[in-house]
Amino acid sequence: MSQAKRQLHLNLFILSTGHHEASWRHPEASPHLATSVDYYQKLAQTAERGKMDSVFLAEKYRLTKTIQHRVIPQMEAFTLLSAIAAVTDRIGLTATASTTYNEPYHLARKFASLDHISGGRTGWNIVTSTGDATAQNFSRERHLEHRERYDKAREFVEVVKRLWDSWSEEALVIDKESGLYADIEKIRPADFHGSHFSVRGALNIPRSPQTYPVLVQAGSSEDGKEFAAELAEVVFTVQNTREDAIAFRSDVKKRMKKYGRSEEQMKILPGFIPYIGDTEAEAKEKERELNELSVSAYGLQCLSDTLHTDLSAYPLDGPVPLEALPDISQIKGQQARFQLYVDLARRESLSIRELIIRTAGGRGHFTFAGTPVQIADVMESWLLSGAADGFNLMPPLLPIGLDDFVNKVIPELQNRGIFRTEYTGRTLREHYGLTRESLHQKV
Amino acid sequence: MSQAKRQLHLNLFILSTGHHEASWRHPEASPHLATSVDYYQKLAQTAERGKMDSVFLAEKYRLTKTIQHRVIPQMEAFTLLSAIAAVTDRIGLTATASTTYNEPYHLARKFASLDHISGGRTGWNIVTSTGDATAQNFSRERHLEHRERYDKAREFVEVVKRLWDSWSEEALVIDKESGLYADIEKIRPADFHGSHFSVRGALNIPRSPQTYPVLVQAGSSEDGKEFAAELAEVVFTVQNTREDAIAFRSDVKKRMKKYGRSEEQMKILPGFIPYIGDTEAEAKEKERELNELSVSAYGLQCLSDTLHTDLSAYPLDGPVPLEALPDISQIKGQQARFQLYVDLARRESLSIRELIIRTAGGRGHFTFAGTPVQIADVMESWLLSGAADGFNLMPPLLPIGLDDFVNKVIPELQNRGIFRTEYTGRTLREHYGLTRESLHQKV
Repeated sequence: MSQAKRQLHLNLFILSTGHHEASWRHPEASPHLATSVDYYQKLAQTAERGKMDSVFLAEKYRLTKTIQHRVIPQMEAFTLLSAIAAVTDRIGLTATASTTYNEPYHLARKFASLDHISGGRTGWNIVTSTGDATAQNFSRERHLEHRERYDKAREFVEVVKRLWDSWSEEALVIDKESGLYADIEKIRPADFHGSHFSVRGALNIPRSPQTYPVLVQAGSSEDGKEFAAELAEVVFTVQNTREDAIAFRSDVKKRMKKYGRSEEQMKILPGFIPYIGDTEAEAKEKERELNELSVSAYGLQCLSDTLHTDLSAYPLDGPVPLEALPDISQIKGQQARFQLYVDLARRESLSIRELIIRTAGGRGHFTFAGTPVQIADVMESWLLSGAADGFNLMPPLLPIGLDDFVNKVIPELQNRGIFRTEYTGRTLREHYGLTRESLHQKV
Repeated sequence: MSQAKRQLHLNLFILSTGHHEASWRHPEASPHLATSVDYYQKLAQTAERGKMDSVFLAEKYRLTKTIQHRVIPQMEAFTLLSAIAAVTDRIGLTATASTTYNEPYHLARKFASLDHISGGRTGWNIVTSTGDATAQNFSRERHLEHRERYDKAREFVEVVKRLWDSWSEEALVIDKESGLYADIEKIRPADFHGSHFSVRGALNIPRSPQTYPVLVQAGSSEDGKEFAAELAEVVFTVQNTREDAIAFRSDVKKRMKKYGRSEEQMKILPGFIPYIGDTEAEAKEKERELNELSVSAYGLQCLSDTLHTDLSAYPLDGPVPLEALPDISQIKGQQARFQLYVDLARRESLSIRELIIRTAGGRGHFTFAGTPVQIADVMESWLLSGAADGFNLMPPLLPIGLDDFVNKVIPELQNRGIFRTEYTGRTLREHYGLTRESLHQKV
């Protein structure tokens, strides 16, 4: 192991026609397939052909007006991932599920079930839900404050871990002769009584192949980083430059020690939006082509939402009105995204229009246009400089952006010895090189 | 249509190794496959080969001690049905989901998603959850009273129907040229504000092929029958004799009129447990063989639970102590099952041991052992006498009891012209001959 080269981990973030907001308008896009299971199954099969670690689905529990100008995720994650599991064999299946408006018992059952169905390929992207509009779909008036959301999330994770652990390895006896199916002495109740949840347990599904899905986290606020250091094994993050990514990764990993965790037990995957061309000019042309398809009303609405400021009152070609924005302490959700946009506008003195275009392709995620060799260079440099353990791949246009990545970039990474040429494990935990034991110490 | 013979509808109730409590101990049973997706996929494929209307999965949100002596359902219904959808083409997929411990927004999303994935093959068995043990898995101390559970269920169904209806047929525009993806004027919020739920909506998934899954109901108490008459399109019921079934079906269908519904818009499917042999003696031998595998401690526990009385204090070969049982008004859940057991014990003057054996095969469901011709005779007689619109098939031993039914009984039913020889529709609603419009009138 010691002489083996460090390798990248690659997760495919599946989002309808692609991560560029205008991708659905592209001639090669198939927006009418957004509710077609075949479409998603084929994407996952392509990612599996590329030996990627995992596919990932985001989840929102509300509809926004931006549906006017954009395809948004339109399938429930567990039903879709289960249908994907049925036609794949090795690739991981990571689902977003919120700790704010779910019941731990239901969620533990769904993950245990999907883990059985997939032979141990599940991952859980643990999120908290923000926004009064979401709260109002769940018989609440207002959403929870930032700190309270994370407190609830910690309790939630603790409950589901106890439920997943409730069947010991020896609980299933299945002795036809004596008539003993399960040894109930080897099944422990959860017996959790906290300030947000009270769950007696035990789970009614036997221990699954991984026991715990790989625990993923994606918030980059202060609370989010602390939560990741304590609990997450994979972190999805928005990092715009290699330097920011190095600082972020070092920051989060250093926090792990106080939770008794070693830094190897966390993989940090910045979002990455590649435009792939046979020449650099062709790649840049692809980026320009998608940017030109953007609907400006949509971009202005999204930017106003992220900055918590109605920007329609300001000239589109004037500067981003930094002095008019609220203080970050007033922001209740997506604090890190707010800060990233403010930093970007300040650093590059952007106009409102310029900031819209800069964020249209992937809401602030790292974007790069180039040849397969240039893209591999960037990825290798982030890996070797300690900016990343891998990437959360967000193709701007699907399926073609994924096809190109698998056919052209992955072979280049493999040639350099920084990406696997074959799966060596069966479970998602094995793909990521994560042990379950590091999580067990804390229970 | 007028000269066409009335035909049976057949639903397969999938339960691990079969509906006999001791089925897992049978030499032909594979209890270690209870968490194997392949096992369930093959059962569904066999049912589809038999042109059955639907497969059905029950759901419990708690673990009981009876796991010592019995395989209980061990997979979450939506993840399992989605994996089944991926390998089948026509057969319906009916999931139990409780209105007591779920959020309408989540449930509406899951069904809409599964309906898209399956091309319109979903059904929802609407249940209410009972028992403090279940309540305590969801941060509640005690469960809801009977009437309140049904009130909450009515609100729940109303909310999810509004959510499923929130996208009009014309809402999806998908005009690449103009950049208009959806017309938000054609998407209505749910705007529901009741005493149990408050849900703003709209759903974030476009209208699915069926819009509404087929609505199924299975409680046979007074509240349950009223709920069915108002809302259910398919009713699963426990009926021990043809006469009881005729009375039940007539009773429930008569209640529909006051809700403005026609009797054709409900299909009543009593549970049916067939033992199939090439001779009658062979069939009866199969039944005896399974009954002999029963674990008496298990049967006594189940019977005590159902009768809300600790029977271990009474002699096993003495009479069922009818005078010691609580009054039905004291029973908080499963009232109809309680009454059915009491009636059975009284009518046949059964001992405790005899009642355990009589209910071991399927908790009071109609059981019949015979040749394929004898079984077809019984099914035809129930159909023609107005006892049933079809059956909820509960094979005592799986997969063999299903294989025999599909290979031997279904051809006999087809020869008599009382079961389809080919699917004529694509959706579950079409298989059952149900229109969505009858439900729409009431919204």
